[in-house]
Amino acid sequence: MGARETLERLVVDVPDFPEPGVVFKDITPVLADHAALSEIVEALAAAGRDESGSTVVDAVVGMEARGFILAAPVALALGAGFVPVRKAGKLPRAAYAESYDLEYGQATLEMHEDALAPGARVLLVDDVLATGGTVAATVRLVERAGAVAVAASVLMELSFLAGRETIGDLPLTSLLTV
Amino acid sequence: MGARETLERLVVDVPDFPEPGVVFKDITPVLADHAALSEIVEALAAAGRDESGSTVVDAVVGMEARGFILAAPVALALGAGFVPVRKAGKLPRAAYAESYDLEYGQATLEMHEDALAPGARVLLVDDVLATGGTVAATVRLVERAGAVAVAASVLMELSFLAGRETIGDLPLTSLLTV
Repeated sequence: MGARETLERLVVDVPDFPEPGVVFKDITPVLADHAALSEIVEALAAAGRDESGSTVVDAVVGMEARGFILAAPVALALGAGFVPVRKAGKLPRAAYAESYDLEYGQATLEMHEDALAPGARVLLVDDVLATGGTVAATVRLVERAGAVAVAASVLMELSFLAGRETIGDLPLTSLLTV
Repeated sequence: MGARETLERLVVDVPDFPEPGVVFKDITPVLADHAALSEIVEALAAAGRDESGSTVVDAVVGMEARGFILAAPVALALGAGFVPVRKAGKLPRAAYAESYDLEYGQATLEMHEDALAPGARVLLVDDVLATGGTVAATVRLVERAGAVAVAASVLMELSFLAGRETIGDLPLTSLLTV
């Protein structure tokens, strides 16, 4: 699988970031390489197509901030619109809010109430699936808008954090599992 | 000009956000419309091409967070790599830092020291040119890496904030001036 090999080659492990004992997966070398970026966008977009290659989603939702970098190109590749899910207080108009647990405390994500049409089929795109809290909160935002989360696509899944258990039945594509 | 008319049609003015007296330009309806997103990405990318349509930049730099949404697709359209400029403390490896003045206090932007090859030609992409502080700080980051900022492309220029004066001789493409 080309995308997986590309990620294995280019993602850089940075020990002790953002805190001691954590190994941060730095994807910036993937983004800086045009051929690699093009390949992984296409691989992420595959989750929004059926077997004949036709797009089966109406919108691609990306989560602030690194998710934006991948989700907007995926939306363009699929012929779909892009919808940002942002950290609390950043969106200017009426927004749904959903919180999720962090190691210490909580974080809140928001999406404009009119961002998705009722019944819209939505692909979620982010860089990393860790605990799954971000994806699960985004699914709740999509459902509050009356839309349907059909799948999620991420570059990397940190399997030791068991994010798949948190996101339940949502089909997940991860290009690299570590 | 198609892109300008598209922006005039879809950008929403939100009064009193993020504070009383400020009119926020909400671009999310542009992003949510596939045809509009496609059109504005192509218009932003034009600043990275010569008259024959050949790409003249090696990398596209996008500024966190809304700049990411536009800069990554522009990089893909140009056959270039994407480099994120992030708020302080987000990048995991050795980074240059440049600060700029806000209405109250300062903000700091960072870019990985190895993000750009010496001599690389760079296009800056962001959503809005306001005071120009973000673009000017990003130009300084590019120059510290030994690379060359050749132009900047933004969706909208808030001309009453005189950002063009702050960015000096850098060629600026703005799809809509308000």
